[in-house]
Amino acid sequence: MKIVVDAMGGDHAPGVVVEGAVQAARDFGVEIILVGREADIRRELAKHTTTGLIISVVHAGEVVEMDDHVSAVRAKKDNSMSVGLRLLKEGKADAFMSAGNSGAVMAAALFGVGRIRGIDRPALASIYPASQTPAILVDLGVNTDPTPQNLVQFAMMGSLYAKIALGLDQPRVAIVSNGEEPEKGSERVKATYPLLQNSNLNFLGSIEGKDIPKGVADVIVTDGFTGNVILKLSEGLISFFLKYIKATVTSGVLNKIGLVLMIPGLILTLPGLLFLLPSIQRLRKRVDYRELGAAPLLGVDGVVLIAHGRSDAEAIRGAIRSTIRAAEGHIVETIRDSVNETPQPASGELPAAQA
Amino acid sequence: MKIVVDAMGGDHAPGVVVEGAVQAARDFGVEIILVGREADIRRELAKHTTTGLIISVVHAGEVVEMDDHVSAVRAKKDNSMSVGLRLLKEGKADAFMSAGNSGAVMAAALFGVGRIRGIDRPALASIYPASQTPAILVDLGVNTDPTPQNLVQFAMMGSLYAKIALGLDQPRVAIVSNGEEPEKGSERVKATYPLLQNSNLNFLGSIEGKDIPKGVADVIVTDGFTGNVILKLSEGLISFFLKYIKATVTSGVLNKIGLVLMIPGLILTLPGLLFLLPSIQRLRKRVDYRELGAAPLLGVDGVVLIAHGRSDAEAIRGAIRSTIRAAEGHIVETIRDSVNETPQPASGELPAAQA
Repeated sequence: MKIVVDAMGGDHAPGVVVEGAVQAARDFGVEIILVGREADIRRELAKHTTTGLIISVVHAGEVVEMDDHVSAVRAKKDNSMSVGLRLLKEGKADAFMSAGNSGAVMAAALFGVGRIRGIDRPALASIYPASQTPAILVDLGVNTDPTPQNLVQFAMMGSLYAKIALGLDQPRVAIVSNGEEPEKGSERVKATYPLLQNSNLNFLGSIEGKDIPKGVADVIVTDGFTGNVILKLSEGLISFFLKYIKATVTSGVLNKIGLVLMIPGLILTLPGLLFLLPSIQRLRKRVDYRELGAAPLLGVDGVVLIAHGRSDAEAIRGAIRSTIRAAEGHIVETIRDSVNETPQPASGELPAAQA
Repeated sequence: MKIVVDAMGGDHAPGVVVEGAVQAARDFGVEIILVGREADIRRELAKHTTTGLIISVVHAGEVVEMDDHVSAVRAKKDNSMSVGLRLLKEGKADAFMSAGNSGAVMAAALFGVGRIRGIDRPALASIYPASQTPAILVDLGVNTDPTPQNLVQFAMMGSLYAKIALGLDQPRVAIVSNGEEPEKGSERVKATYPLLQNSNLNFLGSIEGKDIPKGVADVIVTDGFTGNVILKLSEGLISFFLKYIKATVTSGVLNKIGLVLMIPGLILTLPGLLFLLPSIQRLRKRVDYRELGAAPLLGVDGVVLIAHGRSDAEAIRGAIRSTIRAAEGHIVETIRDSVNETPQPASGELPAAQA
């Protein structure tokens, strides 16, 4: 298997990208094609032992920066994303991964490899970290104002990805709403509900925010605006929570120190607090984007995954592992077959598109 | 000051409502009018010492149940919400509080006391619990599909409430979006952004989900769909964290117990874990709806607050305290004056309403 890696994507590119790609080539036995400024990539490669690994470099003279507007993909014709995606399009690789500007990767993928026929809008999906059982959250911000038909396609693609990424037979699909009853919801949700009910998906109904961490659904469908708020609020709350626990544990220790000194035997209680640290570390690790791998861009006509911009080498390695799994799971072929098998409703049969 | 309390509202009514109202009458020196089935209320009142307190009972023969459809407000004409709100409308009380079905309270308030002239849609606001500094979140689910003009009014009303409830001079207002840049957002947010910029509010711009717990804004404006997801996801995540920490602390103790027994002195480390419990309790308390009081229905022409349906007596007491503060702060007059002072844009000047 050959994976194209955008060596210039992410906050710490190309250093950590090259390092993570070397680790992935060694650990997973795949071929890696690094795309970007050749001299920079070769300099980074020289820092690692690559004997026995199949790592090639394809030069691309330009870089889409993290804060560039999406239009930079077209303005900078020789950018590493577009060059890498061309290799994918031409069949010279099996999958593409970038930790770059996600809007730009999306634009470059639409331009470079196109949509799967029958899919109106690709969507970004990710494993939602703070759930008791892992779940796929889709969409994450690419489509802020999807139509009900778009949402049904997101649900279908998310469900197929849950089969591949989570190994589930009949993933349970739910739509995010402001109440569990079918008559609750925004106009968009209320129009989507009956379409999901009439689909061949294992549709459970609506779930509220409080149910998202409970693991009641395997695929959580929502518009990209709400999905982005859900994912980022979860990150923010976890960070808030960990800081809070740390601060209160520390102040608790200081408050109790007088007491502890009065009863010398109790000085030994302090190590007890250290018991807690590993469990906090486990929580942090569990919800850490570095452990979550990359998010697939579902609906484009090639295996394209996007990693977190803040990725370090370990995160890049994990993102490449997700990319290999998506390619091995034949995510593109699976979506293509599913679209062809499912009779697509003509637009006239659908409720009016929501703004 | 006279507060009307819906004695029949909430999961544990009328018992805990009467108990909390008696505590509030004693602690805050206000008059309480309990509305509902007189015999039931009198039976509950008899369980408490009410000497010296001014607590009256007004009979209402019907009850809007927690799971009733909103239309029950009209079907059950003699329900405790409508009877209580009539007292408010007639000037026989200063404020109204219910822990009942929030959709029904909203409907009964619109029907019974009406909107403040110039306000198109009332909104439900609440103190957002999981922020480093308290913030007002508006709207919480009453308006799932507001127009940009509605959102500007929510921001205005939320800002006035932040002055009263949080004692701030110039509350910082932000709108929830999927990115910080003005060009990011749903169509609704992008249409609202320039209106907020041109308002006389202290508008900071957009905030992402991850910033919500950081206390970067005092008033967080969003549509009721997203607001509901934010509030309930926060509740769900906090519950998830607390369970996680509890489970890992417990398993950590079990894992370490062998080690502890080997070095008898270290048995004393176990009490160290107990140090943590108070800090977890503090967090739980901080985000507990019982500590947050009631949420004001902003934009109706009377002081109307809604408490959590699961409220216990202590929560009812706290909800009455919030109700007193809202009345003392003249929230209705303040909103009325602000609407009259602010030149209202004609609908023609606004972008088209979003679906």
